[in-house]
This record gives sequence, structure tokens and C-alpha cells, in this order.
Amino acid sequence: MRITTIGVVAHPALNEATPVLRALAEHLRARGARMCLETRSATLLDGSLDEPCAVSEGPDVVRRADALVVLGGDGTLLRASHFIERNEVPVIGVNFGSLGFLTEIMPSELLPAIDATLAGDYPFEERRMLRAVIRSAAGVEEQGDALNEVVVSRTDLMSRIIELDVVVDGLFVSSFRADGLIVASPTGSTAYSLAAGGPILHPALHAVVITPICPHTLTHRPLVLGDDVCVEIWIEAAEVEINVTLDGQRSIPLTPGGRVSVTRSPRMLRLVRAPKREYYEVLRNKLRWGETGKRRETPA
Amino acid sequence: MRITTIGVVAHPALNEATPVLRALAEHLRARGARMCLETRSATLLDGSLDEPCAVSEGPDVVRRADALVVLGGDGTLLRASHFIERNEVPVIGVNFGSLGFLTEIMPSELLPAIDATLAGDYPFEERRMLRAVIRSAAGVEEQGDALNEVVVSRTDLMSRIIELDVVVDGLFVSSFRADGLIVASPTGSTAYSLAAGGPILHPALHAVVITPICPHTLTHRPLVLGDDVCVEIWIEAAEVEINVTLDGQRSIPLTPGGRVSVTRSPRMLRLVRAPKREYYEVLRNKLRWGETGKRRETPA
Amino acid sequence: MRITTIGVVAHPALNEATPVLRALAEHLRARGARMCLETRSATLLDGSLDEPCAVSEGPDVVRRADALVVLGGDGTLLRASHFIERNEVPVIGVNFGSLGFLTEIMPSELLPAIDATLAGDYPFEERRMLRAVIRSAAGVEEQGDALNEVVVSRTDLMSRIIELDVVVDGLFVSSFRADGLIVASPTGSTAYSLAAGGPILHPALHAVVITPICPHTLTHRPLVLGDDVCVEIWIEAAEVEINVTLDGQRSIPLTPGGRVSVTRSPRMLRLVRAPKREYYEVLRNKLRWGETGKRRETPA
Amino acid sequence: MRITTIGVVAHPALNEATPVLRALAEHLRARGARMCLETRSATLLDGSLDEPCAVSEGPDVVRRADALVVLGGDGTLLRASHFIERNEVPVIGVNFGSLGFLTEIMPSELLPAIDATLAGDYPFEERRMLRAVIRSAAGVEEQGDALNEVVVSRTDLMSRIIELDVVVDGLFVSSFRADGLIVASPTGSTAYSLAAGGPILHPALHAVVITPICPHTLTHRPLVLGDDVCVEIWIEAAEVEINVTLDGQRSIPLTPGGRVSVTRSPRMLRLVRAPKREYYEVLRNKLRWGETGKRRETPA
Repeated sequence: MRITTIGVVAHPALNEATPVLRALAEHLRARGARMCLETRSATLLDGSLDEPCAVSEGPDVVRRADALVVLGGDGTLLRASHFIERNEVPVIGVNFGSLGFLTEIMPSELLPAIDATLAGDYPFEERRMLRAVIRSAAGVEEQGDALNEVVVSRTDLMSRIIELDVVVDGLFVSSFRADGLIVASPTGSTAYSLAAGGPILHPALHAVVITPICPHTLTHRPLVLGDDVCVEIWIEAAEVEINVTLDGQRSIPLTPGGRVSVTRSPRMLRLVRAPKREYYEVLRNKLRWGETGKRRETPA
Repeated sequence: MRITTIGVVAHPALNEATPVLRALAEHLRARGARMCLETRSATLLDGSLDEPCAVSEGPDVVRRADALVVLGGDGTLLRASHFIERNEVPVIGVNFGSLGFLTEIMPSELLPAIDATLAGDYPFEERRMLRAVIRSAAGVEEQGDALNEVVVSRTDLMSRIIELDVVVDGLFVSSFRADGLIVASPTGSTAYSLAAGGPILHPALHAVVITPICPHTLTHRPLVLGDDVCVEIWIEAAEVEINVTLDGQRSIPLTPGGRVSVTRSPRMLRLVRAPKREYYEVLRNKLRWGETGKRRETPA
Repeated sequence: MRITTIGVVAHPALNEATPVLRALAEHLRARGARMCLETRSATLLDGSLDEPCAVSEGPDVVRRADALVVLGGDGTLLRASHFIERNEVPVIGVNFGSLGFLTEIMPSELLPAIDATLAGDYPFEERRMLRAVIRSAAGVEEQGDALNEVVVSRTDLMSRIIELDVVVDGLFVSSFRADGLIVASPTGSTAYSLAAGGPILHPALHAVVITPICPHTLTHRPLVLGDDVCVEIWIEAAEVEINVTLDGQRSIPLTPGGRVSVTRSPRMLRLVRAPKREYYEVLRNKLRWGETGKRRETPA
Repeated sequence: MRITTIGVVAHPALNEATPVLRALAEHLRARGARMCLETRSATLLDGSLDEPCAVSEGPDVVRRADALVVLGGDGTLLRASHFIERNEVPVIGVNFGSLGFLTEIMPSELLPAIDATLAGDYPFEERRMLRAVIRSAAGVEEQGDALNEVVVSRTDLMSRIIELDVVVDGLFVSSFRADGLIVASPTGSTAYSLAAGGPILHPALHAVVITPICPHTLTHRPLVLGDDVCVEIWIEAAEVEINVTLDGQRSIPLTPGGRVSVTRSPRMLRLVRAPKREYYEVLRNKLRWGETGKRRETPA
């Protein structure tokens, strides 16, 4: 697929992104590619962009683009990712400040990454998404994909604990009395699941992790399964409000007697990689594991 | 204070409580004490109680009683406790099935406990409550007490993390990025705080524990402080909905720029104790620590 | 491979095993199979076994057997497993009392399982082992396999913390300051790793988990990787005594400047399965997750 | 008590301490105070100290001093603290690099702190120690104090789990199957106990925390008790080697049938405080909680 239109989504409060945005626009023009900027992100330019550039709404920018540049951190990329419709769209996540799990390209590495992308010869990594199908007791179905995680949790503050039955490939696993339950992909294992006490899953692992949120039964521990399973979560007839949330971006109410099934989605996100950056470097950086210089050299 | 009116609150679905309720009514009549039954609980009797007995709404029953009998588990007792207005009202918590942290009296121990209570000579334990004062940015104040815990948490599913500043006795402790924050009493340390990863505080300890809920900063650990401190939680100007919840019974919205302060309340709950039951026995039982008979004897 | 010799290892203090052992001996004789009993286990019979039966030392019994019966719990099976030399030897683990992760056959299920095994038509599961290669600073190598886990830990009580560098497939991951480090297989994920805070890995998952023991850096979390990686653990020049322990069965000192590499072993353990027992049932039972009858039916 | 002799203990590899040591010696001479330097620390000076100064062995230096200066981190101070015999000896802990929980004086703050100490007018904090009494099955007693924690743990790598009975004030609490058990003071709550999953106890709290190390029973959680209790740990008749370790400094073997009791010691450590440093600042710094400048100001 030839890449001619580059969509750009930037965090609108990220003033440091302005010069990068200008340089990017000029760079793309010089190479004959079209840039399409999200309306909100355009505020960073104060209407003063010299280069010809289409401005459009977020979902539209993402849908029309052959490649996507995201300026601004994992949250911004996560939001944009929900509008991508084709697996083969390369996504260049640029961070300002600290490395991100999804945005590992430094601003100085952007233009070389763009050139490689336009040439169709760029290093990338594909991150498998999860598909959630929500069935109400009445049989109505709704579905959506998540890059990080599917969360089933109570909305109601007054009834602290909800009871959820987990069934994997038709086999009953356990009832969980908890604030909720997270089904996370390897990509999502370093997000909400980690805060809830889950392990880190290497992105190359074909797995999901089921992590309970504040489980009442203290022996409930995160459970890691192959990503070829179907995880079903059943809701007891309950008076509490329960919701299914995808990547913290989209929320769907779950009625008593309803259930959610989570499987591997056919959707994948194609992340453009920085040339010499390792996953473990991002991990050390984000989790502040610290590193002693000498050690990094020794084992080489 | 002479005890003449005994309030009774029972879980309305607890059919095993019916014979106990009847025996209690007869017992009280024979001793010349008045029984006052909560309207909802009266359904357990199908209108067939022979003994004269006032029936009234929950809050009213609790307010008029010189002593309170609760049939049905920690949840029922917790709910009733919020209507008690005087520290010296003895509360007899009767469990059906498994020991409760608050309901440690077995049905067979109820009538002797009643006699001791009527005679004014009963073993008891006083559980200190927490007082929460919620101040809006505009300066409006609202206040309430909690036996177990004060929880500050987001209501909003779409924005996962909230940022809270904790200040103790005027000293900044830390900013917490988390789902929320629990300030629990020793009594509450075995409830929600435990599910969130908090330690168990012995009820005799004059302390509170601040337990973060799913903290984003992985080094945030539960912090135990003396109960003579003032814990303040400040909310950043935020777009997310945040609520303060007392014992999962009462919920108050917290507006941006608002804050909550938690201190020791002048309110205490007077729990009637079972004659020979130890705290550790309840702990082993509730947390399924298991116990080997021989061991319980050995160290005696 | 025809099965003619059945090795039997029983926990020598397990008196309940005596009638099972007798019945097994008679059953095997009737089918023309030879039974070979471990010397220590023979004490259960007080020398009174009528059936002809070879008695021999543990390692020898295991090595000679075409199939192995273990009476007595996961510990006994783990110990015996270290002497098995061929992947295709079926192992029948019989528990007395509670289900085991490795011993899921009930005594009443033993004889049918034996018949199926002798007929060469039995359900089984293969559990992949880990191979540890320990290299001293001087270049001397020693190696061993582990079904559950490889543990690197200090022996010295006086110096609490050791510093270990973890390198995966040649990439530096992090330095761990901790009591030690566990590399566990899915089978071992419910053993020591779980006690150290690790997640549960489904046995069908091709993965290992690196779980730190009491990490000084509070952000160090268990890390799950594919089982096709090579995990290396490097020891700094240190004055503390450090040991590598395989399944808690065999311990090898690690000298300063030494390192351990852990990979998937070519060795697997072939566990005979109970006909209708699911992994999740064992999990619920062992971890006391509790289960409500109705729920187990519902999702079927 | 008049302060005339200042003992000095420095980490012998801490070259940055040399100029501080020289300045201190000169400062003390000018004020007519005697300095007594530990033999090992004297290597930092290469024998070239101009000022008259007694050099002596560690324990001796500490015992003779009216006040103690420690240069070099919490570990060095912990080691030195075991030789202090009187509660009223002020200890000035100077850190080089990062703040310590025990060494919160910066090098630039040392001389003013010395002057205040010589004048007998210095801010300080008293940290209560724990007393461990170890009784063998034969009735032999040995005793020792710990500033941080008393640890009961196995020495044996081959038998992973030990079984310990905990009895508090004569009441059986639970049997713990674990790698070991930590009884920590508030001071020690940020050391080994934290790594094992324990909570942080504010130093002003009169409490101890019992933290299990890798508990096999997953519901075992840290238990916080008042420091007026007697915590007894009983050892079953076992074949494994078990040791009691005080602050990681002193280790005493525990024979089968033996037990340890831990109570509040009459010993306290008097730590000289930095004028305007708060406990929470040290906490944020040591645990890398991070702090946003604006927030530190806001709530003032």
C-alpha cells in the first residue's frame, strides 16, 4: 500500500509540539505527501501553518490516513487508536519528555521515521487487540476492541462489591467478589492491570491476564492465559450498576443477567519502532527501575 | 442509664432469624423490656408476633433504643450503626452462619447476652469512628462519621486515574495518582482497605491507615498513622467526578478545589462481646487462616 | 513402548496409603505387571506384602519403571520427578486428602487409571521443565532441570540483600536488589512464585515468570515471558553466599562473577489426568477460592 | 550529661567523607571536644589527620562516646547503633548522596548540628528498639535488641517452608507457613518489612508490624499491633535450620521446640534531627514517590 496521506493527532495542550509539527509539515510537503491534521491539534499552530494541510475531526483524520503520527504520550495514542480501521496503518508515537510504552519515538527521531515509513521500509511491532462482545440478558449484542484492557466494574459507590463469574472456554473458573475485573493484553499489562497488582507480560507473548480489582477473596491472584481462549464474565442478577469499559475510552452498561466475552480481536495496531530501543529500556524508564551504567555494559 | 427499650434490626431475607426473633420477643416480654422492631425486619414474622412489639422505620428504631440487637452479618450492623446517636448504646451483633468482625455473637449466645445487657453488666468493646468533613471549593461544609472507612474515589469510568494530594497535620505527604484513597479505622482495616492491599490493624490500636486504591505509582504503600492526626485529601481542579463515601452507606460529591479532612470522631460504637471469643479467632475464621487444633492448645 | 514395570513411591508416613498399596499390588499381579516399590515406602507394608514385588532405592525404582505411581502429595511427586529420565513415562499422582496440582488422581480413581495406562490409552498432560545451567567465574558448568522453578537466593542471613542482573536473550532487563529471584514454569507458578507474589500461569501457556523475592525496589513486578527465551542471571562480585536451588530439591552454590541461564528443557513430565477433572477445579480447591454450587452449573 | 567525647564512625569506602571528617576534627578541636575515630574509618584519612584524635575499634568508639557521628548511610548507622549502651547518646547520621531514613543530616548541616549537640540543645527524635528473647527447648535464654526488625527465617534452602505459631499476649494468632516472619518497629517498617509487602508505620506510632515472608497461605497479611504486646513465635519440632536475625547484624540459631518473644525494649536510639526536614520528605525521597512542586506549596 502506498503511503500518501499522513494523519497527525497532537495533544492540544502540548506547546512543545508546535515546532515539531511545523517541521513535520514542511518535511512532508518537500516529499510530496499530504498531511491531515486533527481540528483540536490545529490550535497548536494558531492558524499559522504555511504548508497546505487539511484539517479535520479526529475520527476522520485517522480514517483517511495511510499512516498516523501521534504527538503526545500513550493516552493520546490510545485515544487515536480507536479510530484506526486497518491493521496495516503504521502509527508513529512521539513522546515529549519521557518514553512511553506506545510512544517510544523521540522528537529527534521523527523525520527519519517518516522517511522510512514513506519508503515502506520501517521496523514495526504489531500489537494484538482484544475484542469484547457484550450480551444483555435480552440477547442484544454490542461489540468493541481494546488495545490495553477490557474492564468490568461497578459504577455504584454505595454497593462496594460485585460478584462476577468467570468462565474460560466454557469451563467455570471462579466467582470473583471484587470492585471489578480487568482482562488485559500484554500491551495493557503495564497500564491499569499493573496498578491493580497484575504482572508484566512481554508484548511478544500470546497471552491475556485476568486481574481482579480489590478482590474480597484474598487468594484471588492474577491469572495468565493463552490469547486463544474465550474469557466470559457473567453478571449475577444484581441491583448494582455495572459497566464494561474499553481502554478507558468507551463505556457500555451491563444489565443483570448479561455477560461479556473477551477474545483475541482480528485487529492489530502497527507501531513503528525506534531503531535501537528495547522494550526493557522503556520498562526500566517507565517503572523507574533505575539502572547502573556499568551493568548495562557488562553482560553485552 | 437504665435499659428498657431494645431495638431490633434483622436482615429481611434471613429466614433463619425468625425463631430467634420470636424467642427474643418472648424473652424480653418476660423481663418487662420493650422490643421495637424495624418495619422491614417485621416481614420475617408475617405479622404473627404474639408479643406486644412496636414496629417502626429503621432510623427511628435505632434512635429510640437503649440497646440494639442486629441479626444478620456485618453489613446489616454497619447500616444500622449509622443511625445510633449515643456512644453508650450497647449493640449486640448476632451472626447466622459464620462469625463476623462486628457480629461475633452466636444465636445461642443471644439471650444470655441480653440478660447481661439488661443488668447493665456486659463485656463490651468500644470502636472509635472516623469523622469526615467535606469542604467544597466555595467553602460549604458537610460532615459525617464512618465506622469502617472514608473513601475518596472517582465515579467516572472514562478517566481512570485521579490525582489526590494528601496532607497530614498540615504537612504535605504525597500526591497519589490512583483510582482512589481509603482512610480506614482499625475496625475498617479488615474491610475494603484489606481488599485494596492494606494491613490488618488490631482494634485496640489508636491508628488509621491510608490505603491507595490501584495506585499508578507502584511504590505507594499503605501508611499507618496515629489516630490523633488530621488527614486531609485535596482535589486538584479536575474534570472527573469524585465522591466521598462513608462506610459504603453515604456518598457525597466532591467538587474540584474541594477537600476532605478525616479525624478521630467523638462517636464510638459499643459492641457487646461474646464471653470467650478472641479477636484472633474471628480473624482466623474470616480470613480462612486455618488452624491446627494442637497448636491452639500448645502455647496456652 | 509397552508398560510392564510399574514403579511406586509413597510418602513413608502416609498410613492411609497402605490399603491402596496392597490393592495396587494385587491388581498389578492379576494383570501380569511387575511392581517395584521404593525401600522407604516399603515400611508402610511392614514387610507383609504377599504379592511378589521388587524393593529398591528411590532413584533406582524411578529409573527402571515404565510408569510411575506416586502416593502422597505434590512434594512427593516433585521429589520423584527428579529421577525420571524419559519423557514418555506416565506418572500417576494420587492424593490423600486434598487435590494436588500434580496429584489430581483420587485413590478411588487409581485402578481404572492403571488399567488405562497399561492399555497405553490414558489421558495425559505434558509439563515442560526448565533447564538451568550454572557457570562459575572460572568457567566450570553444572546443569539441572526443574519442574517448578529455579531460585537464585542468598544463603547468608547477615547480608540481607543481593544484587542480581537479569539479561534476557542478551538484552539487559534490570538489576534486582532482593532476597532472590525465582524463574518459574507454569507448573511452578502456583508454588513458590505464588507465595512471592507471582501470577498464576495456565499450564498450557508457553511461558516463564520471573518473580523477585522481597524486592528492595518496590516497582519490580513479576515479568512473564515466552518460554523460548534465555533468562540469564548474573551475580556481581559479592561477598555473600548465593545459591541456585532447583525445585527445592537440589542446591548449587554460585560464586561471585558466576551466572545462571534458564531455558526450556527438552525434559517434560507426563502427568496422567483424572477423567473429568479440570485445572480450574484444582485451582479453586487448592487456593480455597470457594465456589457456589449454582454458579458452577449456570454457565455450562 | 556534658558532651566532651564525640565518637565518629564512617563507611571506610566513602571517599567523599574525607574532607568532612577533616573539617569535623578541626571544628571539634577548636571547641575543646575530643574526637574518637573508629580504626576502619581512619583509613579515609591516610594517617594524615593533624588534629589530635584517638583511634579505636568500632564497639569501643561507640561505647566511650558522649555523642556519635555516623558518616555514610542507614546501613552504617544501623551497625553502629548496636554498640550504643545509653539511651541519651545523641546520634548524628550524615548521608552522602541521598537522604536516609536514619541519616537525614546533609554534610553541610553537620557542623551546626555539632554545635547544637555540644550546647545540649538540639532537636531529636527517639526511636524505640525491640527486644528479642530467644529460648531454646532446653530453657537456655539469649537476648538482643533491634532497631529495625527481628526476623525468624529458615537457613535451609532445601526445605522451602517453615511453620511458625504466633502467639500474642498468650493468645494464639495463627500458624504461618512461610519463608519466615518479620517483627518490625515503625523505624524498621521502611526496611525489610516493606520489601516483604508490609505497610509504612509512622515513627511516632507506638506499634509493631508482623509481616510474613512469602506466606504459603495467601490470606496472611501484615498485622499491626500496639507495641505494648508480647509477640511470641513458636517453632514446631522441625528438621530445618531456623535462625533469628536482629537488624541483619546478629544471627542466633533457633532449635526445634524453641521460641522467640519480641517486646518493646527499654533501649531507644536518640537521632538528631535536621532543623526543617519532615519525615514525609524523606519518605518521598527514598521511595521515589515524586512530588510536583506546585503541590507542595498549595496546601501550606
